[in-house]
Amino acid sequence: MSKAGVLTIQAERLQRRIMELAEIGKIGDTGVCRLALTPEDKQGVERVRQWMEEAGLETRIDPFANLIGTWKCEQPQQPVLMLGSHIDSQPYGGRYDGVIGVLGAIEAVQTLKEERFTPERDMEVVAFCDEEGSRFNKGLFGARGMVGRLEEGELARTDRNSISRREALVAFGCQLEEIEVYQYEEGRIGAYLELHIEQGPILDSMGEPVGIVSGISGPLWWTVEMTGFAGHAGSVPMHMRQDALLGAAKVIVALNELVTAVPGAPTVGTVGQLTVFPDSRNIIPEKVSFTVDLRDMDLERRNLYEAQLRAALEAITALHGLTYEIREDTNSEPRYCAEAIRSVIRSQAEDMQLTPPELMSGPFHDALTMSYVCDYGMIFVRCKQGISHNPAEYASPEDISLGVELLYRTAKFMAVSNPEA
Amino acid sequence: MSKAGVLTIQAERLQRRIMELAEIGKIGDTGVCRLALTPEDKQGVERVRQWMEEAGLETRIDPFANLIGTWKCEQPQQPVLMLGSHIDSQPYGGRYDGVIGVLGAIEAVQTLKEERFTPERDMEVVAFCDEEGSRFNKGLFGARGMVGRLEEGELARTDRNSISRREALVAFGCQLEEIEVYQYEEGRIGAYLELHIEQGPILDSMGEPVGIVSGISGPLWWTVEMTGFAGHAGSVPMHMRQDALLGAAKVIVALNELVTAVPGAPTVGTVGQLTVFPDSRNIIPEKVSFTVDLRDMDLERRNLYEAQLRAALEAITALHGLTYEIREDTNSEPRYCAEAIRSVIRSQAEDMQLTPPELMSGPFHDALTMSYVCDYGMIFVRCKQGISHNPAEYASPEDISLGVELLYRTAKFMAVSNPEA
Repeated sequence: MSKAGVLTIQAERLQRRIMELAEIGKIGDTGVCRLALTPEDKQGVERVRQWMEEAGLETRIDPFANLIGTWKCEQPQQPVLMLGSHIDSQPYGGRYDGVIGVLGAIEAVQTLKEERFTPERDMEVVAFCDEEGSRFNKGLFGARGMVGRLEEGELARTDRNSISRREALVAFGCQLEEIEVYQYEEGRIGAYLELHIEQGPILDSMGEPVGIVSGISGPLWWTVEMTGFAGHAGSVPMHMRQDALLGAAKVIVALNELVTAVPGAPTVGTVGQLTVFPDSRNIIPEKVSFTVDLRDMDLERRNLYEAQLRAALEAITALHGLTYEIREDTNSEPRYCAEAIRSVIRSQAEDMQLTPPELMSGPFHDALTMSYVCDYGMIFVRCKQGISHNPAEYASPEDISLGVELLYRTAKFMAVSNPEA
Repeated sequence: MSKAGVLTIQAERLQRRIMELAEIGKIGDTGVCRLALTPEDKQGVERVRQWMEEAGLETRIDPFANLIGTWKCEQPQQPVLMLGSHIDSQPYGGRYDGVIGVLGAIEAVQTLKEERFTPERDMEVVAFCDEEGSRFNKGLFGARGMVGRLEEGELARTDRNSISRREALVAFGCQLEEIEVYQYEEGRIGAYLELHIEQGPILDSMGEPVGIVSGISGPLWWTVEMTGFAGHAGSVPMHMRQDALLGAAKVIVALNELVTAVPGAPTVGTVGQLTVFPDSRNIIPEKVSFTVDLRDMDLERRNLYEAQLRAALEAITALHGLTYEIREDTNSEPRYCAEAIRSVIRSQAEDMQLTPPELMSGPFHDALTMSYVCDYGMIFVRCKQGISHNPAEYASPEDISLGVELLYRTAKFMAVSNPEA
């Protein structure tokens, strides 16, 4: 049996929708810029809403600009089974990130509807608002809104054009009064399933089309500011220098040594942002600001590395006469997928003759937020070379179809049973 | 005898002029922004021109916007003895850089005039145009123009507002036709003397008001671009990464190890500028561009370090799957002060009961350009903590007076003899 032979879902319809959505906010041949709550995002949401309705779902947009399609069953035996992801993109993003999770969920439900399947619980498909966080520099907005986890002042955050989230929501057509009175109804959602491209190279390097997520390793995010003393690059003798960039470079090297200490461990550590002041070729750097991103599925090990990194910072700055400050921007714990749901996905994959590896998600997803209110499971689809957040992002129609088929089968199983109970 | 007791020059007049010039382009209490060829620079040049005329010099502005004050003698026995520096500043500069060299030279010559001294060679005081190079990103313009060392296309260079050097010269009042026909008259200048603040911390740390410069260590300047491969900071396993910032950090550390290998050597190595692309906290850096500044009075040793740094770049980039390109922006050889002139300064300093240390200049000065057409000597004045290119730049009136007195005595000696012949 070829892999395509296992498909119940309509692969062509799915692919057609993916390509059609990619036209909205298109950049270049294969890129997408559909920032949350922009006219492009609105147009995308309206298009997805039509497909939800074609699939037979009842649709609404909630006060947080989440698009929700509901399949009500007559006598629900269990809390809601929710499937979803997002359709907003990075400013220089690709066609698959988030999109295959939303359109895949619609395809799964539409297939169930078409085969006159009767679920024993309400099913919902959600396109969450602003997962990426690019525009207002804080992501997972819609999911956090839905489950009552917004923070103080979030509506006042502004984008580069000084437009606040509040104004953008109003422009999008949301009723702000509803946000004020909104209350998350505890226990309403029983389980959450999300399909997503891996955004990493593991499946591609293993030659596997799909994978089962073990959990999302919440990151520890720091901004470190290191301060030395500026001076002319030609005239201050080496032993009298307080070079902040030299200190930062040593910290970058030390972080890399720490996180590569255990071969094969999923630990990752990254310095992705770094700025130098005054940033002049003949002035010794006085200030360097850089980010640290540290992730691990093993929180104890991550905490150990954090402590070791703090010790390295102390030693390096003392040696070079520098001072430093650490601002902790995010400190998320790892969130594990429910073993019961992983086991359903595993056995459904086996029926499809797939051998999906189980892997950690380094990136966060809407599922991270949902994990605080219900059990969750995630399926990853291979993406070429692990490239994501880039127009070159690519997942093959075959791989996407296999992932969506697995999502469909898992949802079908869970719609009449409750593995998480 | 107190140090002040040795002064022939008029310290108060000198200090008054320094403070008056500091009012032009003043920023904050003690800062100056007098970018080359701006209205502030023009105003400064006009003020200095008045002081030159007060001193009895005949003044003119040459086609490169150099202000030149001439003292013609009747029967010159030697080529011109030139004294000078610059009055343009960094965008966030101080009151002393360049200024004390120009106003000090005027004071020296005015003192000679007032004591009815008769030189046996023409003397010239020059305020060179655009030593700093901040505005058009290329310095020593006036000096290079005067001695016929401008490069192709220099007049087309533009500033941040897209104003070309050509346009700026015209706005300043220069006759561009004269540039076209200008020819440097070889052998016209016999010797060049420059007084400047040290812009480094050596004199301050030794408790010495003035120093004798042994030479200017021309820098080797590179821009290195290192390229890896972007990826999500959460999802690409460490062993699959091609992190350009990690590579750059290792090069920064390697450079530091090289230039500190010989304790007490004047070698300095600096990475002052560094930019990361895409500079996002959760994306592995794909490209890093950084500068390298390497200086030594010993060119052979500098060449050895350059070779070792190239080898380190090879090894580091190979290890991390990176590629790199080196653009050589500048490769200046060290230029030594004439021993005969240093010896005159040394004996004049001894008469003043000073014990000036001899030290290398890491920064370049107008003297660097002049070194290609004549012998030169330089005197450094202590500046507080070595701070320069900063509003906090400070040299005490006492130290400046001692430096200018030493300049005056040296010029007086050289005006009737020719140590360099």
